[in-house]
Amino acid sequence: MKAAVLYDTNKPLKIDTLEFSALKYGQVLVKIAYSGICHSQLMEVRGKRGEDKWLPHLLGHEATGIVQEVSKGVTKVKKGDRVVLGWIKADGIDAQCAEYFNNNQVINSGKVTTFNEYSIVSENRLIKLDKEIPLDEGVLFGCAIPTGAGIIINEINPKENSTIAIFGLGGIGLSALMATKLYNFKKIIAIDIEDKKLTLAKEFGATHTINSKKQNVKEEILKLTSNQGVDYSVEASGVAQVIELAFNSVKKEGGLCVFASHPQNGDLIKLDPHDLICGKQIKGSWGGACYPDRDLPKFFELYKQGKLPLHKLLEKRYTLEEVNQALDDLENRKVTRPLLEIDTKLEEER
Amino acid sequence: MKAAVLYDTNKPLKIDTLEFSALKYGQVLVKIAYSGICHSQLMEVRGKRGEDKWLPHLLGHEATGIVQEVSKGVTKVKKGDRVVLGWIKADGIDAQCAEYFNNNQVINSGKVTTFNEYSIVSENRLIKLDKEIPLDEGVLFGCAIPTGAGIIINEINPKENSTIAIFGLGGIGLSALMATKLYNFKKIIAIDIEDKKLTLAKEFGATHTINSKKQNVKEEILKLTSNQGVDYSVEASGVAQVIELAFNSVKKEGGLCVFASHPQNGDLIKLDPHDLICGKQIKGSWGGACYPDRDLPKFFELYKQGKLPLHKLLEKRYTLEEVNQALDDLENRKVTRPLLEIDTKLEEER
Repeated sequence: MKAAVLYDTNKPLKIDTLEFSALKYGQVLVKIAYSGICHSQLMEVRGKRGEDKWLPHLLGHEATGIVQEVSKGVTKVKKGDRVVLGWIKADGIDAQCAEYFNNNQVINSGKVTTFNEYSIVSENRLIKLDKEIPLDEGVLFGCAIPTGAGIIINEINPKENSTIAIFGLGGIGLSALMATKLYNFKKIIAIDIEDKKLTLAKEFGATHTINSKKQNVKEEILKLTSNQGVDYSVEASGVAQVIELAFNSVKKEGGLCVFASHPQNGDLIKLDPHDLICGKQIKGSWGGACYPDRDLPKFFELYKQGKLPLHKLLEKRYTLEEVNQALDDLENRKVTRPLLEIDTKLEEER
Repeated sequence: MKAAVLYDTNKPLKIDTLEFSALKYGQVLVKIAYSGICHSQLMEVRGKRGEDKWLPHLLGHEATGIVQEVSKGVTKVKKGDRVVLGWIKADGIDAQCAEYFNNNQVINSGKVTTFNEYSIVSENRLIKLDKEIPLDEGVLFGCAIPTGAGIIINEINPKENSTIAIFGLGGIGLSALMATKLYNFKKIIAIDIEDKKLTLAKEFGATHTINSKKQNVKEEILKLTSNQGVDYSVEASGVAQVIELAFNSVKKEGGLCVFASHPQNGDLIKLDPHDLICGKQIKGSWGGACYPDRDLPKFFELYKQGKLPLHKLLEKRYTLEEVNQALDDLENRKVTRPLLEIDTKLEEER
């Protein structure tokens, strides 16, 4: 089977034909239909996660596909099931990481990888996809939706009539924005460096937008909040300084900043301790504090009610062979959430 | 009446004879018996709080005394009551700040000041002192005890059998240490730069001590916690880098650092965002999240049960005229919590 392999950081991924051995306890073989590309993979490929001791290895952590085979012990899914693959731990066996082979060279892998035609996945990184959700849009339930919407629903759980600012309108930021529709916010402020994203944000429910390249974000937010700052901020830009800005934008006495960004290894955030003493709060998000077996069915329901217009996030599609182009486009902000079309026929076969 | 006045930052306080006018709505006139000196006043006097727009002004925020007169509206205390004065907002009228006069010059003041023979205090900065608690030890219920013990009781509320590290053994750190006795901790690690303090910490219940001038704190804490880090850390050293160290010392997935330090204005703390993503938490404390009318009676009870050996914190006493010496001694770590004896006869009079 074909797979995109990272042999060296800061070099293009190589498309190789790999072998894999028989399934081990708790593993599931999935034929991948579509995979998302997340900022995390870009950081890995560009070597911004510190030393990579797993080279060479496979990549990717949100996808959809069809189960081909299950190993001993697996009860959560069966052959033929349409599934979402994601990195957030769910119910099921925590199987060992899969290994692949390029001739006799071992290619490492995690509990789940998705830039490959077939994937050996740990049972606890799989959820059955609702039958009304197409496989292409379904990929976003692997990472972007649980993280972005999870931040709003699980980590913020907003009060009535509050104000929120969302920094960075990639997959996670837009997913957070979609989830604000479930609540009665007074003001929803979307911040990005691109007008195109801000226009999209309006469609997703933002009441106000700020282009941080053209406007002073802190001043604009103060203007919009009677000089208080927002009740909540969500940060998903990938940049340490933006986490600081998001923290600085919340009000004293109870303002909460939740960030999803994983900045470059070694980048620190600088905070004024007096802000924390005055009741500003900051929290890093681990997958939106989602528990996939509990939360994904809720998100599927929202999708079916038309509250998650996911197709708007997937404006650009690539083949597996074009994965390096997709990474470049993500880096250069030419695409919000690149979608790899790995086997588009799978949807028809069901 | 005599009072210590800050006319200029970075200069000694001047003892002047001041006048004051009639009480206004919600104000209470108190004759001060004893006052504590907190690190906050040291920072104010040394100009480390940024520009001081209230000069000249009075100082001090923890004391005891006897009510001399109450204004219209005051119901919480009456003439002759023994009271604790503190900075944390409590029940009662939030009266306007008092003004004092040196001839015709206005000397500013807050809702409460304590480096003065008489103080005009807002009703909501007063609590009646339990009659079994002497006025000298009672001062610590104004700031050190509610903040230090409040961090443990209100903000940490520890799980059974957990581990805690306390950084900086001044009034607040030692008060936090005293409060650990109310719980069943597995390990209580006290950290300071002075062996004398560490010896005291053992008397207060520390199971382990670390001299941070002689030992690598992070390594020692990892050794004591099977390489996990502590469940909780409390920081009260006044130094931004120690806040960082206290944060770095807690374990991933739920470790909580609460700091009480107010570092010098402009000093920032640098945190690794990945630590927050992995579930480390950090919180600044506002007076131990205490609600004085609810919490002080609990702390009085602990004192009467012998669980708060406050006399050990008050090893050095000064007259009001010696206030500058007391500040120097606090700065040079010659005293843990300087006690100003303003009118020692008040105790006998009751």
